[in-house]
Amino acid sequence: MSIVAVGTVAFDAIETPFAQTDRILGGSATYLTLAARFLTKDVGLVAVVGGDFPEAYIIELQERGIGTEGLVIEPDGKTFFWAGRYHYDLNNRDTLDTQLNVLATFDPVVPEVYQSRRIVCLGNLDPTVQQKVMDQVPGADLVIADTMNFWIENTPDTLAETLRRVDVLVINDAEVRQLAGESNLIKAARKVQGLGPETLVVKKGEHGALLFAGDEVFAAPAYPLEDVYDPTGAGDAFLGGFAGYLAGQPTIDTTVMKQAIVMGSVVASFCVEALGPERLMVLTRDEVDARVADFHRLCAIPEGILVG
Amino acid sequence: MSIVAVGTVAFDAIETPFAQTDRILGGSATYLTLAARFLTKDVGLVAVVGGDFPEAYIIELQERGIGTEGLVIEPDGKTFFWAGRYHYDLNNRDTLDTQLNVLATFDPVVPEVYQSRRIVCLGNLDPTVQQKVMDQVPGADLVIADTMNFWIENTPDTLAETLRRVDVLVINDAEVRQLAGESNLIKAARKVQGLGPETLVVKKGEHGALLFAGDEVFAAPAYPLEDVYDPTGAGDAFLGGFAGYLAGQPTIDTTVMKQAIVMGSVVASFCVEALGPERLMVLTRDEVDARVADFHRLCAIPEGILVG
Repeated sequence: MSIVAVGTVAFDAIETPFAQTDRILGGSATYLTLAARFLTKDVGLVAVVGGDFPEAYIIELQERGIGTEGLVIEPDGKTFFWAGRYHYDLNNRDTLDTQLNVLATFDPVVPEVYQSRRIVCLGNLDPTVQQKVMDQVPGADLVIADTMNFWIENTPDTLAETLRRVDVLVINDAEVRQLAGESNLIKAARKVQGLGPETLVVKKGEHGALLFAGDEVFAAPAYPLEDVYDPTGAGDAFLGGFAGYLAGQPTIDTTVMKQAIVMGSVVASFCVEALGPERLMVLTRDEVDARVADFHRLCAIPEGILVG
Repeated sequence: MSIVAVGTVAFDAIETPFAQTDRILGGSATYLTLAARFLTKDVGLVAVVGGDFPEAYIIELQERGIGTEGLVIEPDGKTFFWAGRYHYDLNNRDTLDTQLNVLATFDPVVPEVYQSRRIVCLGNLDPTVQQKVMDQVPGADLVIADTMNFWIENTPDTLAETLRRVDVLVINDAEVRQLAGESNLIKAARKVQGLGPETLVVKKGEHGALLFAGDEVFAAPAYPLEDVYDPTGAGDAFLGGFAGYLAGQPTIDTTVMKQAIVMGSVVASFCVEALGPERLMVLTRDEVDARVADFHRLCAIPEGILVG
């Protein structure tokens, strides 16, 4: 199957306890497509950048098989910019600066070549923008969306409209609780499934992820890493690995969804090993496969658990 | 195999968003042995209570097969008392009152009948007290210990001595980080293994548990519960389920340790379903077995995950 991913292509300035960057390549669509490209053919992005965006970055994406037909360049505009600083434990961060720039007026146009894509991935964006994308790919088999607290708080009605049209919502645990107004995570997930998405993927960072597919629940840990260098993009890489895996399968069912969660976790675990998208840029398929095997070992309950 | 569990037998006064109790039966040794009793024969406790402790509570434990030969009653003393209030989300609690009473001078005497027990379980207690217990069961196959931030902060040297003699340390994630002085959980766990315990079990509450056994890592989620009623004793029930499972097996190796983590998680998941030890009091072996089967389904990665 094929994917069109809509999100941001951005400049990020990142501070971690280990490093500090100037403006480097970032954005949800960047991480998402870099993660998905291993797993399926025909991965393309829809995003907007300004005239300040280096062509070299576009070439880097193209060289990795990512379609950029949907990348609009506004020559007179400036690229979306985000600056953030991670705390000592890397689990929390402060946003230091956000400059929407060309993103403020982003009106996504899905190129004709992407309008028959089977899977639509909606990165964290204004839910109105997410709906405009869905309108342009009406025949998609699966719509996967991300969202965040900003839209839950500020545009709840539009978000509700979007959710009714989404098949899979990928969201972090604090946001599920917020969206449902319910502190118990399992109850909250069930409530959010009732808002539209039949399937819910709850990202819990270093604690792994939960899949709620219909009545079924599946839990996957995070891959244990001794050296987390930069968490930027991990959530988008998870989404890309998840969606990319689904796109690579002939049919999509709960079994495949569970496998896709593992793939998302694996790809995200690579993402955080280096600064920005560096690790995803050089990641190989063999590395991915080896870590998937490790992941199986990590969470395989030995058979024969019996009460003595 | 057989277990001797040393810890507290106490009065707890618990406030949750759903209920408030007067003084009810509590204490680490209570939860620990109530959880272990399903899984192995010969579970006995060593603890101290005051003259105010109802005989009816002792009979409740005895009726469930728990040996109370090591329960010392100090007729002129008062039983250890803890009062706490859980926050709305049940993940945090405030201690409202702690009265050590007879626990302040607790000098454990392991009855002769327990001195040949194969597994020693040391509930969260002063590390000096934990050492005194180990001295009295010198031939134990396995020593499993719990500890907490209070001892890490206030008696680090004594705790270090205890750790050198412990085979398995069961501890929560914040405490591993604190004990190791290291924010990365995996690095912190490795460092704590270097302090003595070959095996480390990291409890993460609603996020499950991690096993570090030699070089191996195993991750288990928490059983997803829609109705958490009272988290009191969950950590001790986990420890009891873990130790009880080990005790029920002919030999103990990493495979069995992984299975024991699942059992600890399952028994702990029952513990939180009702107030205090109520659920463990009435829990049946069939219920445990059924939830173990559910747990397998919860975290089984379907075979055949391949890159497409």
